[in-house]
Amino acid sequence: MKKKLYEDRLEALEHELVAMARWAKATGERICVLLEGRDTAGKGGTIKAIADRVNPRQCRIVALPKPSDVERTQWYFQRYVPHLPAAGEIVLFDRSWYNRAGVEKVMGFASDTEVDKFLREVPVFERLLVDDGIRLFKYWLSADQAHQEERFAERLEDPLKRWKLSPIDIKARTKFADYSAAREAMFAATHTDHAPWTVVDYNDQKHGRLTLIHDLLDRLPDTHIPDQPLDWPALDHAPLDEAFDLLRPIAPYPLDD
Amino acid sequence: MKKKLYEDRLEALEHELVAMARWAKATGERICVLLEGRDTAGKGGTIKAIADRVNPRQCRIVALPKPSDVERTQWYFQRYVPHLPAAGEIVLFDRSWYNRAGVEKVMGFASDTEVDKFLREVPVFERLLVDDGIRLFKYWLSADQAHQEERFAERLEDPLKRWKLSPIDIKARTKFADYSAAREAMFAATHTDHAPWTVVDYNDQKHGRLTLIHDLLDRLPDTHIPDQPLDWPALDHAPLDEAFDLLRPIAPYPLDD
Amino acid sequence: MKKKLYEDRLEALEHELVAMARWAKATGERICVLLEGRDTAGKGGTIKAIADRVNPRQCRIVALPKPSDVERTQWYFQRYVPHLPAAGEIVLFDRSWYNRAGVEKVMGFASDTEVDKFLREVPVFERLLVDDGIRLFKYWLSADQAHQEERFAERLEDPLKRWKLSPIDIKARTKFADYSAAREAMFAATHTDHAPWTVVDYNDQKHGRLTLIHDLLDRLPDTHIPDQPLDWPALDHAPLDEAFDLLRPIAPYPLDD
Amino acid sequence: MKKKLYEDRLEALEHELVAMARWAKATGERICVLLEGRDTAGKGGTIKAIADRVNPRQCRIVALPKPSDVERTQWYFQRYVPHLPAAGEIVLFDRSWYNRAGVEKVMGFASDTEVDKFLREVPVFERLLVDDGIRLFKYWLSADQAHQEERFAERLEDPLKRWKLSPIDIKARTKFADYSAAREAMFAATHTDHAPWTVVDYNDQKHGRLTLIHDLLDRLPDTHIPDQPLDWPALDHAPLDEAFDLLRPIAPYPLDD
Repeated sequence: MKKKLYEDRLEALEHELVAMARWAKATGERICVLLEGRDTAGKGGTIKAIADRVNPRQCRIVALPKPSDVERTQWYFQRYVPHLPAAGEIVLFDRSWYNRAGVEKVMGFASDTEVDKFLREVPVFERLLVDDGIRLFKYWLSADQAHQEERFAERLEDPLKRWKLSPIDIKARTKFADYSAAREAMFAATHTDHAPWTVVDYNDQKHGRLTLIHDLLDRLPDTHIPDQPLDWPALDHAPLDEAFDLLRPIAPYPLDD
Repeated sequence: MKKKLYEDRLEALEHELVAMARWAKATGERICVLLEGRDTAGKGGTIKAIADRVNPRQCRIVALPKPSDVERTQWYFQRYVPHLPAAGEIVLFDRSWYNRAGVEKVMGFASDTEVDKFLREVPVFERLLVDDGIRLFKYWLSADQAHQEERFAERLEDPLKRWKLSPIDIKARTKFADYSAAREAMFAATHTDHAPWTVVDYNDQKHGRLTLIHDLLDRLPDTHIPDQPLDWPALDHAPLDEAFDLLRPIAPYPLDD
Repeated sequence: MKKKLYEDRLEALEHELVAMARWAKATGERICVLLEGRDTAGKGGTIKAIADRVNPRQCRIVALPKPSDVERTQWYFQRYVPHLPAAGEIVLFDRSWYNRAGVEKVMGFASDTEVDKFLREVPVFERLLVDDGIRLFKYWLSADQAHQEERFAERLEDPLKRWKLSPIDIKARTKFADYSAAREAMFAATHTDHAPWTVVDYNDQKHGRLTLIHDLLDRLPDTHIPDQPLDWPALDHAPLDEAFDLLRPIAPYPLDD
Repeated sequence: MKKKLYEDRLEALEHELVAMARWAKATGERICVLLEGRDTAGKGGTIKAIADRVNPRQCRIVALPKPSDVERTQWYFQRYVPHLPAAGEIVLFDRSWYNRAGVEKVMGFASDTEVDKFLREVPVFERLLVDDGIRLFKYWLSADQAHQEERFAERLEDPLKRWKLSPIDIKARTKFADYSAAREAMFAATHTDHAPWTVVDYNDQKHGRLTLIHDLLDRLPDTHIPDQPLDWPALDHAPLDEAFDLLRPIAPYPLDD
């Protein structure tokens, strides 16, 4: 997808994102979006596209590191709960409690018993959040292995992206079909009326992003909250310059060397 | 500053950012960066430029909403402390505990006594963090009012940026000099040997960003941690396609209407 | 019930409590006990009787103050979740999430809609905890109004207990029947197979305490974990006295005046 | 000390404790009490004596388990800070951040460098709390080894107290003098004007308790807040009995067997 076309369409959606955030703030709505998918699917880029247009004090990105030894013994959902949205907040989960049904299952970090228990528990947990009025959205970003391989190759070659590759990624390549099977089991157990999954084709990441954001906006009520009118008088003095007394700005980064 | 030149120079710095993050992870270093400055100065854009190149599980952005009624009665620093970095983490504060010496002081949300107490307390608090081995960086992003007015005008006109304007911003315009005075008092009290302020000229935001990131990298040790070598064998089968059973991807966002 | 008899019987139960705590620690079991009942029922005394015999690093008492303004907008259970037990812990809730179905309902602090939602949600929430392996016990301490009035009278007269009386207590007296009705609705909705209520007669508080503790112990598996054998050699020197250099003990509280 | 005399004197102090708690609540004062001392010194009993007379929603006991692996890499004080008192709260620390200068130092769990750093940091940290208006009290409970040995012997023999003995206690016996030396170093570094230590003789635990509680009360302002007058009308109906519909109380614990 051409960059120009993408930016053009994205801008249209961004206007709606801004309106949606205003609505959430005015009404105290709580919005919780989970992004799942294989490595390289495009979760991070989508989160940035959304977060870019919302006040960071209203929009939180949650990307939890691995659990501590104590957390590992707690109720599985316990470490996620403190991050759920309060009134007016939009929370974007970059991976989520579904780790257990995906990477932990396929890589053997969780036992079959634990995964089965999780799959039984998760619709119950989500039911609670939804019944409480939290608007929960669960997206699965889908890409074929050929695309994944391309993006892996890019990461291998580009030192700026190299950090995105981990030893787990290498193993994951040979388990593409296992991931598919795990995902289908996850869908079978957790695609519920109250918290359905939405699969988005991310073979073209830009197009995928537009589709996802459009879908999210489409499923939220279109309640227009007018902008607060701002009275913006002219300054009654010439614009002031910064005047430093104690400290001075450091030398600017040299542009020609 | 030209976009092309900016992107070119930024990329050079991004390579160092990636190396720095690898070093922090390998050594368990803890890095804490505070970004302060007037509205429109460019804090958010700088944070994004840094966070873009670091694993979100390693790099957290902290932009706290206003305190709850209970938090307001606690030790002033109490609500910030849980966000301090653990081993290997880089935490970027979009505004910080310095709110009290800036907006709270100028807008009258904190009494003079509270501000004075804060100014006495903060070097002590920061001393603790630094003595514990946390690497603390405090940046003040500086821009003249003429630039600020331009950016305000942009926000007024651009519906995508309109949300960045608040009633407080309107009042703040008429208090430019008060902010300057508050900042000087803040520098006088909190520019210490163990936790000095760094002022960066953000009249040109792109140039400011390069200067700040370069300065940050320059002040961290240049310890090279080699990339983990990754053995990346060819797949022993043709790339697989996604195969969905239970659910299908939703219709892509229509590009021509 | 005579004090001597009570102490005698309590001691027998305390031996079992100690064994139970050892078992929980050794196996990583998680035990969560909720104590509910009208004011004066005897929740606090029961909690103390249990906590007295367990390492405070293993046994936590949770008596939450009223929610902050932000907490009030979160998922109802969110502020309780961080207090759930980790491996080996015993958590005693002095009142719990059931506030909503009791005092909040009767005093009108929660709307009927909120209470109904809560009553639908709570079996789902508890299901999750139980499915995760947390051992959840829910006790309702029952006392007739004549006993309650006696205890209120005691609190009114005894300056050491006066603080236990609040303006809400006064109102609650005239709503004894409303509380009964609210409790019955609560039982109807939340007495489930996976998390049943246990009612204990606390008209005699000492007897009630024995009954409750005995019931709790009876429902936990009787797995005996032997005490770690401790090799306790004689000191190879005369016992040492405290020797202070910098500071001395303060004067002891004068016993005769 | 005779039990009768103890109870008599304690009761006098309890009246003041109740008044103090009322004062803290009315004024929003924050009170933070640290109890340190060798094993068997009497920390737990003192905490119970205080907490017994204060609303558990106002008075929290903090007895932290050992840190998680992630906490171990954070700022040393980070895991303690969330437990500091909010307005009106009284927090009792059963051991505290001083672990590092005591058991960790003597048993070799912290390196000399870490202990030295801690000893430099702690007056700075406490300074902050005190400057913020938190009333901080630090008690060291002192007992000679002969008394400690007696209490150890009691714990060895009494199955109800056996759990209080740990393998660390055995080692600690042979390190009585090391603990003394560590304590003196701790006093030298942390007995400050803003947060002094108070040593209390606990060779007689009951007497020690009276001394400590009296000292604590003596150092808080004696501001009398009158009890809220409560209008307590007679019930306009005969006292009601509990009437259960769905569930019945379980059988009471049998008293004669």
